[in-house]
Amino acid sequence: MRTVRPSRVEIVEVGPRDGYQSIVPFIPTARKISFLRRLVGTGLRRVEIGSFVSERAIPQLRDTAEVLAACRDIEGIVPQVLTPNEKYGRAAVNAGSKFVAFVLSVSEAHNRNNVRRHPRESVEEYRRLIAALPDGVDVRLNLATSFDCPFDGRVAEDEVIALLDDLVPIRPDAEICLCDTTGRAAPDHVDRLFARAMDRFPEVSRWALHAHDTYGLGLANVYAAWNRGVPVFDASFAGLGGCPFAPGATGNVATEDLVWMFRRMGVETGIDLDALVPVACDGAEIPGGLPGGRVRHALSAARTT
Amino acid sequence: MRTVRPSRVEIVEVGPRDGYQSIVPFIPTARKISFLRRLVGTGLRRVEIGSFVSERAIPQLRDTAEVLAACRDIEGIVPQVLTPNEKYGRAAVNAGSKFVAFVLSVSEAHNRNNVRRHPRESVEEYRRLIAALPDGVDVRLNLATSFDCPFDGRVAEDEVIALLDDLVPIRPDAEICLCDTTGRAAPDHVDRLFARAMDRFPEVSRWALHAHDTYGLGLANVYAAWNRGVPVFDASFAGLGGCPFAPGATGNVATEDLVWMFRRMGVETGIDLDALVPVACDGAEIPGGLPGGRVRHALSAARTT
Repeated sequence: MRTVRPSRVEIVEVGPRDGYQSIVPFIPTARKISFLRRLVGTGLRRVEIGSFVSERAIPQLRDTAEVLAACRDIEGIVPQVLTPNEKYGRAAVNAGSKFVAFVLSVSEAHNRNNVRRHPRESVEEYRRLIAALPDGVDVRLNLATSFDCPFDGRVAEDEVIALLDDLVPIRPDAEICLCDTTGRAAPDHVDRLFARAMDRFPEVSRWALHAHDTYGLGLANVYAAWNRGVPVFDASFAGLGGCPFAPGATGNVATEDLVWMFRRMGVETGIDLDALVPVACDGAEIPGGLPGGRVRHALSAARTT
Repeated sequence: MRTVRPSRVEIVEVGPRDGYQSIVPFIPTARKISFLRRLVGTGLRRVEIGSFVSERAIPQLRDTAEVLAACRDIEGIVPQVLTPNEKYGRAAVNAGSKFVAFVLSVSEAHNRNNVRRHPRESVEEYRRLIAALPDGVDVRLNLATSFDCPFDGRVAEDEVIALLDDLVPIRPDAEICLCDTTGRAAPDHVDRLFARAMDRFPEVSRWALHAHDTYGLGLANVYAAWNRGVPVFDASFAGLGGCPFAPGATGNVATEDLVWMFRRMGVETGIDLDALVPVACDGAEIPGGLPGGRVRHALSAARTT
């Protein structure tokens, strides 16, 4: 198997979904839209702007339809929305979404906790959603707990492959994102699992990694995946984030940290780091937010010395 | 070139030197010795316990001879001391040091700032020191600014190789450590430079990496070096550290983060993480210290949830 390290990568900004969802004080819709404008102004294109889920489960994102509507006036944005089932996926499309990310967990315990279904039931939800999608809607498939589960610990690679055996044929052109929900994946694991998956499913044209930085391994895992040929990475501005269903799993990889790393490696992201750092600094000030990352501090310190 | 990923690595604890040196309030000698005992109690063996340098330059480490003497009563410790020239190297040996780390910088600007010499003059210092060493003294060679210089930016790989051409023959069995003084190395750079150096100098039996986490890339760089076959890594408990001569270069890689990563990868370190975390938590409380790292927080959070 020949690995081609991508000379250009796509960073998907997931802060407005994964970063915001665990923040308790409601972020005013106008502020959300203002952040979207600023993020897209730095060169970011695809942004996960929210999710279509139960308002009760994630009240912070109850204005996703409104935010999505506002995206029509933000030039260049490719708004992606997250959904865990057919019903909310249909709602997303009806609200005008052209990029739907469907999420299920590899681990049964996590999937049951998250959406009260066995992963195989979620596969059927995905099948029904795909059948219902009109033409022109792009699909991303998020496999939560691809490496580790907050309830059951390390997830076997075989389990991920077996689930993909069912999922990939349903929509082979879907982008597939392996998610390190707990941040406990190590880079050799990331390397090995992507190598296996990419080898087994050559029909999948785009692979992605959603890394968390809870244990400091976010960038190491992104590097390992890039080194294996993965070209798409999720990140959250200011490192905002955490998973409300994974105790202790705070800390998305910070978008500015990723942009820094790729810039140092000579890999194109299309994002202007100097423009991004001030947005990240403001993002870190969102009341109730849990920011992370290092580059924001390092570059701010460099400016003041 | 065949790369063998080490199944066992050695972590060199450099907190008592690199971590302490930029701390202004003097850490009482007894407290330093107490930390050494506790660190060695976690399974750490080699510890950079201080440096023989001008007391004026680094007053925090003025008690290094006393700390070194106390190591005779700490079972299992392999105390390493840092020195930048022949004179202080001789003093280290006279004080009983059996493991001397000689430091010079690849970048002329950094070496002049650090020791007021051209790097070639430091090569001659090293040559004289090696000639003066009695039998039974191990040697580590630290190449500061092997990737990036706080004054001159990115350091060319050719410069590192050219300096090693002069240095390696002086003492081929010295351990050679490439140091990312500013934390601005990226993992592809680490991978490339070690690949070149290891290929060119097969007579060097031990390579090491000294990584900083200033921009969040510490663990990614360690992973890249390990992936290339490097078996020795510097780290600082609680992530204490920074370089007093490199503005903004705060943040050594935290020992506990490294131990965590390697444990998750099934790579032996011989260190008990559960025993290390409380020592790191206490290290983070040293007045005037600048702690870093993620695992200390993540594991403490996990315990309280």
